[in-house]
Parts: sequence; structure tokens; C-alpha cells
Amino acid sequence: MIEMEGQKNTIVVFSGDMDKVMAALVIGSTSAAMGDEVVLFFTFWGINALRKEKPPRLHKKLLHKMFGWMMPRGIKKLALSKMQMMGMGKAFMNRAMAMAGVDTPAQMLEKAQAAGVKLYACEMSMQVMGIQPEELIDGVELAGAATYLFEASEGRINLFV
Amino acid sequence: MIEMEGQKNTIVVFSGDMDKVMAALVIGSTSAAMGDEVVLFFTFWGINALRKEKPPRLHKKLLHKMFGWMMPRGIKKLALSKMQMMGMGKAFMNRAMAMAGVDTPAQMLEKAQAAGVKLYACEMSMQVMGIQPEELIDGVELAGAATYLFEASEGRINLFV
Amino acid sequence: MIEMEGQKNTIVVFSGDMDKVMAALVIGSTSAAMGDEVVLFFTFWGINALRKEKPPRLHKKLLHKMFGWMMPRGIKKLALSKMQMMGMGKAFMNRAMAMAGVDTPAQMLEKAQAAGVKLYACEMSMQVMGIQPEELIDGVELAGAATYLFEASEGRINLFV
Repeated sequence: MIEMEGQKNTIVVFSGDMDKVMAALVIGSTSAAMGDEVVLFFTFWGINALRKEKPPRLHKKLLHKMFGWMMPRGIKKLALSKMQMMGMGKAFMNRAMAMAGVDTPAQMLEKAQAAGVKLYACEMSMQVMGIQPEELIDGVELAGAATYLFEASEGRINLFV
Repeated sequence: MIEMEGQKNTIVVFSGDMDKVMAALVIGSTSAAMGDEVVLFFTFWGINALRKEKPPRLHKKLLHKMFGWMMPRGIKKLALSKMQMMGMGKAFMNRAMAMAGVDTPAQMLEKAQAAGVKLYACEMSMQVMGIQPEELIDGVELAGAATYLFEASEGRINLFV
Repeated sequence: MIEMEGQKNTIVVFSGDMDKVMAALVIGSTSAAMGDEVVLFFTFWGINALRKEKPPRLHKKLLHKMFGWMMPRGIKKLALSKMQMMGMGKAFMNRAMAMAGVDTPAQMLEKAQAAGVKLYACEMSMQVMGIQPEELIDGVELAGAATYLFEASEGRINLFV
């Protein structure tokens, strides 16, 4: 028999696609609601899901400024991985989700945090893309691959999204 | 020592790309052939792999009809994730697979079912995209994230594709 | 308490995207540095990461030659999954990685091998794409899905990238 209470599950959120980030949040939140400890490790494009809509003004090198401009700023700005169709696919998806009574990605993220899901942002990715801790939403902890591996070594279900 | 017999493995099939769905089916079928219990949980674009080629006529809202039209209807219609080249890449791939004596994705899916691989379709995705149970191939069970988590908690190898 | 020493971790490297391959290599190398046994199973587009820059001349069928031409030859040629922008995104990424003092993907692969990370190339993918063992970098072993499943059955953390 499997003991669910106390189990730990982890997801590497590599993707910054709205649909994949949602999948991670749904699995994560459902898992937390079942009493599991849940760790989401955001890396690479996934970091964009954790960016503040309105970050403080920061001094940055040009290359880092460009990354900042080109990449979506926050979970509301993420694009679908498929059927992007210049934003139309996302509008359809948002409409369809509302019709089905499904939370928006932003609400999912808020609820995941409220449910105690732990959010890590990958330090190396942030350094490469020049994203600074002040640009991330509150409650996110910075961590490296070693921290992820420690968490996942204790994890029952470990996914990469 | 690891006991293979009786082991359970799960794969979340999020992707609706032909190549990724094939990877899931090859791993799943090989695992089933080795005596494992195998669970594939199709969600989001992955649901398209389970659609019937010729579904019954159903009453749907316009938005859901549009999703139905825009998304591939069934495993034979799935596109490659790369080298799509307006369908040419897929034609090449099909030819190359035939030359190598590899099953088509449709055959893989049939054989997976015959080998006892359990196929779940994600309820929430179906609701959002307006896909109804009658539109899916026989033998697929509907399930939510909680069911997936229960299965994966018993899983030895849990992947997300 | 989790015992890290002696643990085995596996990653299926399905993707041939530079960023995803890097993620696999960073996780793999960090894991190996922590004393784990690490297995990377390259399949489908991932195989391209293991191709030699200058392979020997081989007799191939036209279809296989075309696959060879169309797909990136070696880890240095891999493209980003996002922001490709006709190669500009990759140039930015390379520059940003250098600024952050991060290894190039090619260096990561070399170091992973030096750290004892085991590299498998999927036999079926190679057959389909007509890639021959002589075209792969040294130290890669050929294997099928069954071998992967045996390894992953002993794995603590099993990911699909």
C-alpha cells in the first residue's frame, strides 16, 4: 500500500509555454491538496512564469535587457506551445477555459503558492538571462541543480515539463 | 535487486506530436511486454491521439467545434514536432519508419492496447476543448489529475512527454 | 534519510533542442558530481547531439542522406527551442552563457562523459534515421527501449527531456 501523506513530488518547469506551465500547476496543486509536499523547479524559459508584471527598474547590460524585452514578462504573457496563430489560439484557449470553469494560469499559480507548493527559480538560468531576484514574484527561492537533485532524490513522482 | 514483474510505470502524454506520442507508445509497449503494468495519461494536445477518425455527429458550441476542426483528429493526423516542412517531414518519417520495419503510430497504439496498456484521457482537457467521450477510440477511460497522481504514486518510472 | 551515494538517475533525451539538451547535461553532470550513476538515453532528435562534426563517408540510401543533411550534425549545431530568430537567439544565448561563465553545450557533453555519465543512443531511432554508429562521438553505446527500461527501473530520478 502506498502512503500518500508526507510524499514529496517534484516538477522541473523548463518550458515557458502557457499550456505546459498549466499542466505543472494542475499536477502540483492537486498533489498538494492530497497532502503531498510539492516542489516546482523553474528553469530556463520556465523562469518567465515567475516574473513580475511590473518589475522595479534595474541596471542591466544591453544583452540582458534584450532578453528581458523578448521574453514574456509573467505568467499572463505566456504563449501556447501549439496553435499560437498570432495570439488567437491563446484567446480561444482562455475563452474555453473560462467556459469550463477552469482557473486562469495566474490564478493557478496563486493557488499553488497558497497551497504550499514550493517554487524554486534556477540560479544559473537567471544569471544567463540576466534576471534578478527582485524581478520575480514574492515567495520564490533561488536554487541550483544540486538543490533540485536533493529534492528529487526524496521525490516519489519527478517530472520534467 | 529490482523486481520487474508487477512494476507499474506511467507516462503523461501531454504532447500531441507524432514523434513524442510514438516515444511514449514504444516505452509503454516495451514495458508492458516486460510484464509491467503501464498507464498512459493523455492530457491537453495528447488527447488528439485518442480521437476517432470518424466521430459521431455531436452538438457542440462554436468554440468547441473550432477546436475540433483545428486539432488533428486521431493518431494518423498527428504532426511531427520538428521538420514539419508542410507535411514533407512527416512523409519522410513515415517512409523511413516503413523501411526500418517500424510500426506506424496507429499500429503502435493498437498493440499497446492489446498488450494491456491502460489509456486515460484527462477530463479537464476534454471539457476545455469540448471533446466528448464518444469521440475517443474504444477502451479509453476518463480520469482527472488525482487519478493520475494515485497511479504515479505507485509507479516506478513516471515520465512526462 | 536518503542515501545519495550509489543512486542511479536516468534521462531520456528525446529533444534535439540545444536548451533542452543543456538542461539534461547540467542535471546529469551535477548528479554525477554528487556521486550518482547517471544514464542518458538519447533518442529521436536527441541523437543529433551525439553526431560527429565530421563523420566518415558512408554509403546511405537517399532518404537517409536527406535526414543526415536536414538534421543538425553534432551538439554545436543544435538550435534553441524558442527565440530561434534565424539563429540570432542562439547567438544571444551563447553570448549570455559566456558572460555568465557557463560552459558551452559541447564542453558540457565532454565533461559529462569525463564525469562518467553513460550515454546510450537509441538503436531504433538510428535505424529509422539511417544514422550509423561510426557517425556518433566516441563512448556512446547503442541500446533499445528494453535497456532503457532496465536502467530506469533502477533509477531514483527518471526524467524525459
